[in-house]
Amino acid sequence: MKRAKASNISNNVIRRLPRYLRKLDELAGGGVERVSSKELGEQLGLTPSQIRQDFSCFGEFGQQGYGYNVPALREEIAAILGLDRHFRAILIGVGNIGRALMDNFCFTDWGFDLTAAFDIKPELIGREIQGVPVYAMEALAAYIRGNVVDVAVLAVPKDAAIPVARLLTDSGVEAVWNFTNVDLARPDSAAIVENIHFSDSLLALSYRVAERQDERAAKRAKQ
Amino acid sequence: MKRAKASNISNNVIRRLPRYLRKLDELAGGGVERVSSKELGEQLGLTPSQIRQDFSCFGEFGQQGYGYNVPALREEIAAILGLDRHFRAILIGVGNIGRALMDNFCFTDWGFDLTAAFDIKPELIGREIQGVPVYAMEALAAYIRGNVVDVAVLAVPKDAAIPVARLLTDSGVEAVWNFTNVDLARPDSAAIVENIHFSDSLLALSYRVAERQDERAAKRAKQ
Repeated sequence: MKRAKASNISNNVIRRLPRYLRKLDELAGGGVERVSSKELGEQLGLTPSQIRQDFSCFGEFGQQGYGYNVPALREEIAAILGLDRHFRAILIGVGNIGRALMDNFCFTDWGFDLTAAFDIKPELIGREIQGVPVYAMEALAAYIRGNVVDVAVLAVPKDAAIPVARLLTDSGVEAVWNFTNVDLARPDSAAIVENIHFSDSLLALSYRVAERQDERAAKRAKQ
Repeated sequence: MKRAKASNISNNVIRRLPRYLRKLDELAGGGVERVSSKELGEQLGLTPSQIRQDFSCFGEFGQQGYGYNVPALREEIAAILGLDRHFRAILIGVGNIGRALMDNFCFTDWGFDLTAAFDIKPELIGREIQGVPVYAMEALAAYIRGNVVDVAVLAVPKDAAIPVARLLTDSGVEAVWNFTNVDLARPDSAAIVENIHFSDSLLALSYRVAERQDERAAKRAKQ
């Protein structure tokens, strides 16, 4: 299967691929070998035609009337997402979020090796956490020059976000997974930035809670 | 402005609203009073027609050829998202993620009051963290019965996710902000669940890194 060109695939499709992957992992784990776009759609809250259209961006995965082979589809999507690339990541900031990622987020499950962490706190520097060495921030630029770093996970306090991001991209890091909630966009930078915005998620939840309360109030008003 | 009915608004539109809100906050903070769908689109990587279409789901925000009034549009979107409702939230699990949320996530900025936290660790119980009292898990059900709880933030370890989620919904909590990475879907439950999936975000980043590496390899092959 050929990877489709960036320009041809909408961001929305790319963002659905991890959801497909999770669902296929679950199905494969339950011993399911074949799934139709209809079944997949019902389980994911998408229409079968949406699913067929998404998969068609990357070529042909299934056979009409026969459904998709779960393990094969899973492998294809994993490859498209780069899970077989063994990207190397470093973590900047071993505070609560950074520590939560080290302790609980299984980078290797998603094709990433977390090779090093960096912090300014003396009590952390020189330690190993979950097998990952913690270095001083002063060692960051030299580490990037001397090692392959595909992705930097940015989990520093807000005030440090911009200067540290600048140090990263100036040192040659091309992709940042940004937990700081600070907008890192620099018009002159070609860096790939993926933001974790907790607030976006909370507000989507807020919308649905408000909606339900309104529906209930409307029902009461009618009685 | 009337809130649109759930069934009429796609999930994708709802998920773009927080992004609009962030951008409008930024514009308002910079003293910008008026913005066109073209400018907004350029800054958000969306087409002007997409933006006009999104806003039209909720009624009419702007005037043709005149643009949108930034503070008014901001207020409308905030109201649609429920930011003016003062929802009450509790946090279950004061581990790294829970602690990071208490320390760094400004719930009140997003219209939420974090009223209580719950944990099993004796050294945390009875403490106050950022003004929020931490109670024992045993007190959870009684707390929910005796207080308004609009949303529960679930940040317990994986093994506890399902039983705690069940306790929450059985006690009457209708909405869960789920940080456990465990699928809480129960076909018999009407609970609203919003998941934070770190892996979806990392994989979207992974896709873009893989893509860039492929483009570079293709360029080299042509030389």
